[in-house]
Amino acid sequence: MEMEQNTREKTGSTRMCDWVKALPCKIKVKALGIAKKTKKVGKDDPRRIIHSLKVGFALTLVSLFYYVRPLYNVFGESSMWAIFTVVVVFEFSVGATLSKSINRGFATMLAGALGVGVQELASLLGDKGKPIVLGFFVFLLAATSAFARFFPHIKARYDYGVLVFILTFSLVSISGYRAEKIIELALQRLSTILLGGAMCIVISIFVCPVWAGQDLHNLVASNLEKIANFLEGFGGEYFEVSGDEDSGTVPKKDKSFLQAYKSVLNTKTYEESLANFAWWEPCHGSFQFRHPWKQYLKIGALTRKCAYQMDTLSANINSNVQTPPEFKRKIQNSCMKMSSESSKALKTLAMAIKTVTNPSSSSIHIENSKVAIDELKTAMDDALRERFDLLKIVPAITMASILMDIIKSIEEISESIHELSHQACFKDVEKNVSPDKLPQLLHRGIVKPVSDSNGGGDGGDHVIIQVHEKSLDSPENGNPRASKTSSRDDVL
Amino acid sequence: MEMEQNTREKTGSTRMCDWVKALPCKIKVKALGIAKKTKKVGKDDPRRIIHSLKVGFALTLVSLFYYVRPLYNVFGESSMWAIFTVVVVFEFSVGATLSKSINRGFATMLAGALGVGVQELASLLGDKGKPIVLGFFVFLLAATSAFARFFPHIKARYDYGVLVFILTFSLVSISGYRAEKIIELALQRLSTILLGGAMCIVISIFVCPVWAGQDLHNLVASNLEKIANFLEGFGGEYFEVSGDEDSGTVPKKDKSFLQAYKSVLNTKTYEESLANFAWWEPCHGSFQFRHPWKQYLKIGALTRKCAYQMDTLSANINSNVQTPPEFKRKIQNSCMKMSSESSKALKTLAMAIKTVTNPSSSSIHIENSKVAIDELKTAMDDALRERFDLLKIVPAITMASILMDIIKSIEEISESIHELSHQACFKDVEKNVSPDKLPQLLHRGIVKPVSDSNGGGDGGDHVIIQVHEKSLDSPENGNPRASKTSSRDDVL
Repeated sequence: MEMEQNTREKTGSTRMCDWVKALPCKIKVKALGIAKKTKKVGKDDPRRIIHSLKVGFALTLVSLFYYVRPLYNVFGESSMWAIFTVVVVFEFSVGATLSKSINRGFATMLAGALGVGVQELASLLGDKGKPIVLGFFVFLLAATSAFARFFPHIKARYDYGVLVFILTFSLVSISGYRAEKIIELALQRLSTILLGGAMCIVISIFVCPVWAGQDLHNLVASNLEKIANFLEGFGGEYFEVSGDEDSGTVPKKDKSFLQAYKSVLNTKTYEESLANFAWWEPCHGSFQFRHPWKQYLKIGALTRKCAYQMDTLSANINSNVQTPPEFKRKIQNSCMKMSSESSKALKTLAMAIKTVTNPSSSSIHIENSKVAIDELKTAMDDALRERFDLLKIVPAITMASILMDIIKSIEEISESIHELSHQACFKDVEKNVSPDKLPQLLHRGIVKPVSDSNGGGDGGDHVIIQVHEKSLDSPENGNPRASKTSSRDDVL
Repeated sequence: MEMEQNTREKTGSTRMCDWVKALPCKIKVKALGIAKKTKKVGKDDPRRIIHSLKVGFALTLVSLFYYVRPLYNVFGESSMWAIFTVVVVFEFSVGATLSKSINRGFATMLAGALGVGVQELASLLGDKGKPIVLGFFVFLLAATSAFARFFPHIKARYDYGVLVFILTFSLVSISGYRAEKIIELALQRLSTILLGGAMCIVISIFVCPVWAGQDLHNLVASNLEKIANFLEGFGGEYFEVSGDEDSGTVPKKDKSFLQAYKSVLNTKTYEESLANFAWWEPCHGSFQFRHPWKQYLKIGALTRKCAYQMDTLSANINSNVQTPPEFKRKIQNSCMKMSSESSKALKTLAMAIKTVTNPSSSSIHIENSKVAIDELKTAMDDALRERFDLLKIVPAITMASILMDIIKSIEEISESIHELSHQACFKDVEKNVSPDKLPQLLHRGIVKPVSDSNGGGDGGDHVIIQVHEKSLDSPENGNPRASKTSSRDDVL
């Protein structure tokens, strides 16, 4: 019995010993894991590191309200509100910071004035009536504000304002019940809040700014590129053709392009929040104040629709084992052309967004993919004569049919990007292309006169001018609108 | 010249007059619009009204800290922090309120202790060194916290805690630079914050609670019902059969079922936030603390995959005009059966989730839809002999093929719901069904012994016991686990 207990104690102490011995190793592994994650978070978007430094800088700056005697003498304990404002209001993007600062500023003013008013009203009713009146108003406004936050429009744009409103109103009206110098106090708080907010705005705009509008613009373009990459690789993957540079397919081993579209599927919420923040931003870069941000959401929705079709399509990649090779050979050329031309159309559209230029050069690829659809139809007509086993060619037919639907969706995307280019006055690409470059471009696919098309809505009202793609990339197209827009008044 | 000016002035004043006259009308229209919206927001989820009243009540209650002399004498100006806490922490669901309260409580304690420590350390360095040391620590911790908020895991669960941490640390360490009675002040603040937080938690749990977990549970089930409704109506819509009650299709005029799946496409963010809030909630109703909420996200992802396929499929509804009627007739029966049986399977699965019961009765419908797939294949084989124009039947073949893919996805959904039922110990449905009810059920479709199936993974390891569907609906199955789980310890 005793021995058993001894053994138990020994085992216990041995375990304890082992645990203590293993501890440094465990801590090391954990620390390495955190270091790895930290590196990844910073590498994914280096602006995050700069943002963190900006927050640290702003907070240290605002603490001067406490350290510097003359400032402290003016603002006193209210300096706390400046710190508070900086911590809560400083966000990653300029738009988010502006949204919170402006919401906070206006809500504080409105609620402060209302609080003082209610306080005065309650004073008329004597010491017994006062808490009842104040309590009634606090209940009424708190319940109304809480309910207002359920309205989608308010939730999206003024949520923080409503929160600050009810907070300030409660603080002013209730604490006013005790404090005598209420107006002086309210003004002190307001001024520190405005100072803190102004500091955040200035730092976030002038020190390495992160514009939500620019991010939305880039996100929409990069999502288009992702679905373009899927299409670019899809043909080669489906027909098991090893990629070569001419056909634009990527080498077979790297199949990440087949998964990239997946990150497009769930971008709605992120796009909407970026658009909401962008709404607050003054003009910057190529974007004027009141840039048509809503149009980006439309393009985003159409891009997602395309990604949904790809999700359905990707189920077909692996189900083509039983398709008769002769049938595959029949449709291979047209299908590969469909996927590569539609991919090129998307890439041209993405490039047009990135360079803020007119996207008309995408139409040629859309026309080419339509020609490929016609070729596919002819090939299928031929196939009928050879009496393939219908069941065995079902997956291939489905693939081709979804590919046709995708091209229809891409036409819609192209239309909405043309609409954006019209609304946001995208600049035209230089029309005097040197003639020696033209042939290179024209042999890329069958060029069909636009007037022959039955219209994606984007080809009917202008003549296509083929432009060498490099000119879109060139630095002289970088940001010519910046000087034009910077002369406009900032509304803020 | 003068006349012209007169006319202008008159026109101006007339316009002004008109505007003033039209004002009451405009205000009326605006007010009516707001009233309508308010009614809609309240009607969509009446719990919103109750939540607003709860917020009003909590805030009025917390203002007693100011009104009641004995309480004010204890807490003084720190009562402000209780108001602050209630306004910021009180959220719609119990999980969100708990998450914010606990984050706020712990972050305040940790940051307060750290702030006092740094303050003491800085004091050792004399009046000149103090602001430098304090400034250094504020910068360091602010930058680190701002960066930590970019980690996805921290963002999802501790974002508010990090914010409160840096806020409290700055306030305590910087204001400590002036205030002498720092520890007393810190304790006062902490106690009011804890009191405010506790009040929010108590009110949100005991007055008409809104559980994020229950909401996630219902959301997943209702999303399954939405895609089931699409499938239920799809067959009738595609083959233009007017609905009758036996076949389970809905009358043709109401086509909202064809759009309902669209709201499923973008639920990822909402589901994830509900799962994050649910993680904080104690056991309630049928859910234990540490209910497998992650499994709901898996089911949600598979449901969305199904919705993506439906989005691709719905493009096919209107493109079947050119399909030869004879071909349509050939595949009609099997396709309608595929869509109606898969719809029934989804509805049974949704019902199993709703009633927290074992979902085994869905397998029969999945088996039936597999039989329908076989019938479809036979019908297509037949069709080959009649030499239809391949091009004309492409849309119909695509439709059928996507429908087959959807059934595959539903099998995956069924598997993951079985997994959930296993993880969360869903209760078994009563197995002693009265024999006179069985024939009614069995004639619904071809019943295939499960042992013959090549398995969706969910049919192989148990014998199907057919249960009358009404028993799933009956009140005695409402919530029998509530009594079982309520005896478990609440972790919070």
